[in-house]
Amino acid sequence: MTRGHALGLDFGTESVRAVVLDLESGALTATAVAPFPHGVIDRSLPEGGPPLPHDWALQDSDDWLTSMEHATREAMAAAGVQAASVKGIGIDFTASTILPTTGNGTPLHGIDALRAQPHAWPKLWKHHAAQAQADRINAVAARRGEKWLPRYGGKTSSEWLMAKALEMLDEAPEIYAAAECIVEAGDWVAWRLTGSLARNACAAGYKALWHKRDGYPSSDFLRALDPGLENLYASKVSGQVLAPGQVVGHLAGEWAQRLGLAEGTPVGSPMIDAHAAALGGGVSGPGTLFIVMGTSSCHLLLAEREVLVEGMSGVVEDGIVAGLFGYEAGQAGVGDIFAWFVRSGVPSADEVVPFELGDSGKRAGLIHDLMSQRAAALAPGESGLLALDWWNGSRTPLVDADLSGAILGYTLETTPEAIYRALIEATAFGTRMIIDVFKEAGLAVDRVRVSGGLSRNELLTGIYADVTGLPFEICATDQASGVGAAMLGAVAGGAFDRVDEAVGSLAQPPARIVPPDTSHGATYDALYGQYARLVDLFGRDPSSPLKQLRALRAQ
Amino acid sequence: MTRGHALGLDFGTESVRAVVLDLESGALTATAVAPFPHGVIDRSLPEGGPPLPHDWALQDSDDWLTSMEHATREAMAAAGVQAASVKGIGIDFTASTILPTTGNGTPLHGIDALRAQPHAWPKLWKHHAAQAQADRINAVAARRGEKWLPRYGGKTSSEWLMAKALEMLDEAPEIYAAAECIVEAGDWVAWRLTGSLARNACAAGYKALWHKRDGYPSSDFLRALDPGLENLYASKVSGQVLAPGQVVGHLAGEWAQRLGLAEGTPVGSPMIDAHAAALGGGVSGPGTLFIVMGTSSCHLLLAEREVLVEGMSGVVEDGIVAGLFGYEAGQAGVGDIFAWFVRSGVPSADEVVPFELGDSGKRAGLIHDLMSQRAAALAPGESGLLALDWWNGSRTPLVDADLSGAILGYTLETTPEAIYRALIEATAFGTRMIIDVFKEAGLAVDRVRVSGGLSRNELLTGIYADVTGLPFEICATDQASGVGAAMLGAVAGGAFDRVDEAVGSLAQPPARIVPPDTSHGATYDALYGQYARLVDLFGRDPSSPLKQLRALRAQ
Repeated sequence: MTRGHALGLDFGTESVRAVVLDLESGALTATAVAPFPHGVIDRSLPEGGPPLPHDWALQDSDDWLTSMEHATREAMAAAGVQAASVKGIGIDFTASTILPTTGNGTPLHGIDALRAQPHAWPKLWKHHAAQAQADRINAVAARRGEKWLPRYGGKTSSEWLMAKALEMLDEAPEIYAAAECIVEAGDWVAWRLTGSLARNACAAGYKALWHKRDGYPSSDFLRALDPGLENLYASKVSGQVLAPGQVVGHLAGEWAQRLGLAEGTPVGSPMIDAHAAALGGGVSGPGTLFIVMGTSSCHLLLAEREVLVEGMSGVVEDGIVAGLFGYEAGQAGVGDIFAWFVRSGVPSADEVVPFELGDSGKRAGLIHDLMSQRAAALAPGESGLLALDWWNGSRTPLVDADLSGAILGYTLETTPEAIYRALIEATAFGTRMIIDVFKEAGLAVDRVRVSGGLSRNELLTGIYADVTGLPFEICATDQASGVGAAMLGAVAGGAFDRVDEAVGSLAQPPARIVPPDTSHGATYDALYGQYARLVDLFGRDPSSPLKQLRALRAQ
Repeated sequence: MTRGHALGLDFGTESVRAVVLDLESGALTATAVAPFPHGVIDRSLPEGGPPLPHDWALQDSDDWLTSMEHATREAMAAAGVQAASVKGIGIDFTASTILPTTGNGTPLHGIDALRAQPHAWPKLWKHHAAQAQADRINAVAARRGEKWLPRYGGKTSSEWLMAKALEMLDEAPEIYAAAECIVEAGDWVAWRLTGSLARNACAAGYKALWHKRDGYPSSDFLRALDPGLENLYASKVSGQVLAPGQVVGHLAGEWAQRLGLAEGTPVGSPMIDAHAAALGGGVSGPGTLFIVMGTSSCHLLLAEREVLVEGMSGVVEDGIVAGLFGYEAGQAGVGDIFAWFVRSGVPSADEVVPFELGDSGKRAGLIHDLMSQRAAALAPGESGLLALDWWNGSRTPLVDADLSGAILGYTLETTPEAIYRALIEATAFGTRMIIDVFKEAGLAVDRVRVSGGLSRNELLTGIYADVTGLPFEICATDQASGVGAAMLGAVAGGAFDRVDEAVGSLAQPPARIVPPDTSHGATYDALYGQYARLVDLFGRDPSSPLKQLRALRAQ
C-alpha cells in the first residue's frame, strides 16, 4: 500500500492553483490553475457604484470557491488519481487578506443589505488604505511600550488585520458591528470546507499580533486605541489557534461533491503563501535562510529560541513549523527596482536596444536579457558604482517607508549595464545585511535556499552568493507554495506525524547550488562596508538627507 | 570720421572665426569660420607613423595660419570694409595650447628631422597625457610649500604649460633641448603676424603660473622638480608679459598681404577664449560673475584685490582687464552630464521617445527638448531627487578629479524627466557653491552674466536664477569670444584707451534678464543645504565613499 496523495490549494493574488502531490516520491503528479473571475477589485464594486478610493484592493470570496472547484477538478483529472487516494488537503493564502462574516461564516458582502458597502468585502493583502490606522496603532503601542511591538520591528503594517479592522470601525461602524467574525481568507476557506473555524498560527502570528505564550494584544491596549475596538480579539477574532498541519476539520459532504474528493478528508491548518513556500522548498529547520525573491523579497529563518532581531516583519512560534520560532524579514523592493530601471532607465540608442522590439512585455524581457549579459562581463567594483536599494523604502533592518534609493559613483563613462549590475548588487548587500542582523542576534545562517521568479536569474544568484559568501541553493520546483500546502495536507491526513518529517521525505533536492566565488570576496567586503556606512548615514541618522528630501516632496 | 573697425581672431578647438566689429556701434559687421584641415590630431601624425598614445591631442600650426587667412578674407569681403578701416587686430586662443619652436619661431614639427616626433607638434589644451607630470609638480610644490600653489586651488593641471613641458623633457629630451622657445599658440600667432614675441598675461597667469609681482615659479623649484627643467622660464618661456590689449607689434608686410589688411596694423596681446568672452559679453568690472556654460562651465569674476579663494583655477592680476584681479573658477561637468543622460539614461519606451528619430544628433536634440518640456512642469523638490554634479569630478571648490556623481531619492515612481531636472539643479547648486566661496572670501557677486550654448536653455537659466537668488543676464551675442578679441584689437589700435572703455562702449546689453522666482527660494535653500551636506560627506571627508569606490575601481 502506498501513502497516496495530498492536495495543496495555493491561493495567490490573481488565481488559485491546485497541486496533487505524490506522497511516496514527492513528485508533483498534476497541477491546474484557475483565475479569479473578478481578479483584484480596485476600481469599483462588481455591481457598480462610486469608484473605490486610492489604495483600495478588494476581492470577491465567491471567486475563491468557484475557482478552487475548477482548479481542483482539473488537477485531479489530470493526475488520474482516485478521490480516496487523497489523504489530506492543505491550504496557503495571501495574507493578511481578511473578510467580515456572520457567526456562521456568511460573508457580509453576500448579504443584500450590505453588499453596496465596500467595507463588507474582503480586503486583499495589498489594500493599502489603512495607513492612517497603522500609524495610530504604532503610535499608541510605542507610547504604551507594548512588549509585542519589537517582535514586529517596532511597526505594524497597514496590510495587517488590526489596521484593516480599525479602518472598518472608523469608516463603516455599522459593518464592524455586523461582523460577528473577522477572519483570514485561508481560515475562511478551511471553515467553508469543514464547517469548523480555527485560526492558523502563521497568519495569526505574522499578521494579527498573536503570540503562543502571551496571546493577542490586551483589551487595555485596544481600548486605548479606540474603545469600540476593545472586543476585537475577544469576540470577532476569537477561536483556537492551530499550528501548520494540525487538523481544522474534515471535508463536508457538499464540498466533497463539489471538489470530487472523499467526504471526511482531513483539512490542515493553512499558512501564508510565502511561508508555505519554505516547506515546499525543503526548509523545515534552523540554519538555512529561505528567500522568496520576486518584486519584493521575503526572508524566513527557523530557530529554536526567541530573541530580539532588528527590523523583523515578525517572529512567530509555530508560525512555520510547530515547535520552532519562525523569523520573517523582508526587502521592500527587489524585482520592482529592476523593472523600474528597464522601464525608466535604459537608453533608446540603437546600439543598446533595437527599436522594433514590439510590445512592452517582450521588450522588457529582451532588455533584461541584454543588460544581464553585459553586466555579467563586469568585474565587482569595476564600474565604481554603489547603490542603496530603497526605491520602495527599507523593511529589514530599518522599517522605514520614507527612505528612498541612491546611486553613487556616476561618471561620464557609466553604462546602463553598470547601473543594472549595481542595482542587483545593492539588493544583494541588502540581503547580506539581513543575514548580519540574524547573526548579530545569535541565529545561525549557514546557507541560503531561494525560490521565486528571480531565483532563475543566474547573474543575480551568482552575485548574491559572492556578496554573502554563502552557497545559494536554487529550489527545483517553481510551485513551492503549492507543494508546501500539499505537505500540510499530508500531515493533516496522517501520512506523516510532523511537518518536518513531511518536508524531509517529500522535498526535492535543489536544482542547482551556486557556490560563492571567493576571488570576489575582498572587493565585495569593501563595497559592503561602504554600503553599511550609507545605511548609517542615510538610514539611521534622523536628519538623513533622504528624510529631508521626503519632507520637501510632501510639501 | 568714424572709429572704423577691429578684427577679432577667435581660435577654437576645431576652427578659427574672424569677426569684424564696428567700433562706432559695437555691431558685428561680418564673421566667417574656417575649420582646421587636420582638426584635432589624436590618432596618428598626419604623415602616418605609429598610433598616438591614449589621451594625446595635437594640432598642426600650419592649419591655424591657413585657416586664419581664409576666415579673415571671407569676413572682410562679407563686411565690405576697406583694409584701412581696420584699426587693430585682437586674438583669442584655446589654452594651454603650446608648441616648441626655434628662437625665431619656426615650429619644431616644421623641421624635417624632427617631424616624426610627436612631441615636436603643438599640444592642444585637451592633450591629457601629462597627468603623471602634473602629479609630480603638485607633490613637489606642496612639499615645498610653494606660495603660488594656493592661487590654483592647490593643484596644477595636466593641461598646463609646465606639465606639458615636463612631459616633453621626460619623453623626448632631444626635442626639449631643441626647443629654444615653448610658446602659447595665441602668442605664437601674434609673433608670426608681427615678428615680435610677447607673452600674454592671461595665458601666462592662468596656465603658466606667472604672477605680476612674484613672476614665475623659482629656479629652485624647477630644479627640485627636475634639474633639466631649471632653465624653463629663464630661457624657453622668457619674454615680456603684456596685459590684454597692449600692443605686441604691427602687422608685417607678408601677413598684410596674406590677410588683405594694411601693413602696420597694431596687433594686441591675446587672451584665452573663455576669458575674452567675458569682455565680449560685456563684463569688465567687479560684481558681475561671468559664466561660459557649455560641456563644462568656466566662471570669471573681477575684483580690485587679491585674496585666497577656495578651489580657484587661478587668480591673475591683469589676466582679463589691466589693473584688476581676474578670478577663474570652474565646474568640470555641466552640459557633458546632460549629454550623458540623454545618451545613457533615457528610456526607449514608445511613449517617451518615438523610435524612428533617425540620426543620433537629431535624436539627442529631440530628447533634450522633450525632457526640458516635461521637467519644466515639475515644482522644486517635487520629485524628491537630489544629485551631486561630479560626473567629471569637482573643480571648484574641491579640485578633486577622483570624485564621482550621485543621485539620491529614487522611488519606483521616479521619471526620466525628474532625473533630468535633478541633474540641472545639481549643476545650479554647484554654481551657487562657487558664488558662496567668492562671497566667503569677501568678493561681491551681485548678478550673473552667462554665455555659451547652455545660456539659451530657458529651463536651465530659470533654475539657476531661482537656486542662486540672483538675476541671470543672457548675453546677446553668441560670438562673445570673437567680439572680445576684436575689442582687444580696438584697444591695441588706439580706438579706446582701456579695455573697460572699449567694453563699456561696444558691448551689447543682455538679450534677456532672468529674475529669480522668489517663491522657489525656500525650497531651493533647503535642497541646497542638503547638497552642501553631501559636499562635506562625500567630497571633503578623506574617507568619502566616493573615494573608496574610486580606489576599488582602479584595482
